[in-house]
Amino acid sequence: MKILLNLSFVGTAYCGWQSQKNGKSVQEALTRAANELFGTPCDVTGCSRTDSGVHANKYCVTVSPKGDTEITVPTEKIPRALNTFLPDDISVSSAKIVDDDFHPRYNAVAKEYIYKIYTRQERDAFLAGRVWFYPKKLDVEKMKLAAEKFLGKHDFSAFMAQGSKITDCERRVFSSEITVDGDMLTFRVEADGFLYNMVRIMVGTLVDVGTGRFSPDDITAIIEGKDRSKAGTTAPAEGLYLNNVKY
Amino acid sequence: MKILLNLSFVGTAYCGWQSQKNGKSVQEALTRAANELFGTPCDVTGCSRTDSGVHANKYCVTVSPKGDTEITVPTEKIPRALNTFLPDDISVSSAKIVDDDFHPRYNAVAKEYIYKIYTRQERDAFLAGRVWFYPKKLDVEKMKLAAEKFLGKHDFSAFMAQGSKITDCERRVFSSEITVDGDMLTFRVEADGFLYNMVRIMVGTLVDVGTGRFSPDDITAIIEGKDRSKAGTTAPAEGLYLNNVKY
Repeated sequence: MKILLNLSFVGTAYCGWQSQKNGKSVQEALTRAANELFGTPCDVTGCSRTDSGVHANKYCVTVSPKGDTEITVPTEKIPRALNTFLPDDISVSSAKIVDDDFHPRYNAVAKEYIYKIYTRQERDAFLAGRVWFYPKKLDVEKMKLAAEKFLGKHDFSAFMAQGSKITDCERRVFSSEITVDGDMLTFRVEADGFLYNMVRIMVGTLVDVGTGRFSPDDITAIIEGKDRSKAGTTAPAEGLYLNNVKY
Repeated sequence: MKILLNLSFVGTAYCGWQSQKNGKSVQEALTRAANELFGTPCDVTGCSRTDSGVHANKYCVTVSPKGDTEITVPTEKIPRALNTFLPDDISVSSAKIVDDDFHPRYNAVAKEYIYKIYTRQERDAFLAGRVWFYPKKLDVEKMKLAAEKFLGKHDFSAFMAQGSKITDCERRVFSSEITVDGDMLTFRVEADGFLYNMVRIMVGTLVDVGTGRFSPDDITAIIEGKDRSKAGTTAPAEGLYLNNVKY
């Protein structure tokens, strides 16, 4: 028996989704909660690794009891019941039963991330850890043009963290746009998959367009060059949110 | 030389404003930043104690170098300069020079607090530590009527934490109202001063009106009874924000 959960979490207190030797992970917290609720050890599989400090508005997870144990908690009651065993900064919003061969990572056909940049001179204490504070003037119109250059199917090697062992770096970007609301700049990107640090390197490069270091057309050349060192810096983790996963 | 600062902070990581033996305080963080920036030990005095986990949208502090040390940093540059020495969850927004006899606590003529209650069934991970999660139906119209009963000058002994040594419990409430925005209920109260835990006990009592335990008219009787045990529970610290201080 396999249950698919949607959840959101504030990544600030966690070393990321994945359980690790040092630091507490979201996976660990969820596994503990599932074990408690269902009264049996559970396998908990996430839809992607996330870095320390990265957030999720919608993260997908499957939970299945090890062995043949049946789950007797009614499915619609699982979210609230699990939440009573979870810390406040992780929240399960929905649950449904899926086929045993469903895999939250391999079955995903698209993922969407958003990245928030806060450009006001004075920082806002309540946004700490939840945005990238970037209190400098950015040319947003140029950044919007640059964001469009990511659209379509490309080899995104230039936007992958060095040392990553992935060899097939082709990804299809379905949407890529920047919106502005007051001092908050939001980059929203949807693709059939993402390479390690891809969104954060995209953001670092877009900011380089905003400051004038790159022109929007440079993006195409950077993609084609397939050279990580030609792209911008990796933007900090705290502005990044996994926003949606489609199956 | 004395400088008055306005600052905001997220109280989650702190034991409150006041320096204490156990746990880090906002005062301690600010004192360390001021000592660093001004290159000399400073006296840092706050406008009020706050409990662990309580936030501030506007908190007022005076900073003065011990002894006769002059401050050479231009006043308008102090906020940004101090922020570079402060953690991200504390942010100084303005600075001005005040008379040496100015006291941020004794000179205050009014303080305003807000308290946030989130009533949606599903909790929101991003609001953790920043609201009171209260996922039950509340009769808001009755709570609004009840909030008005606090207006005016009263002895608020019934709304003071037991064990407090204050003997003059008369306070004048200038405004007291509840507003609703979707699932967020906000109580806003301004007075010439507050007793220990006064706002949190007011909120606990208002929620008791919302559930039907008390009627709006009971508030007047509770005030007049001057008996803490007749009022409601103390609402949790995390929904409380010091919102303004007037001089």
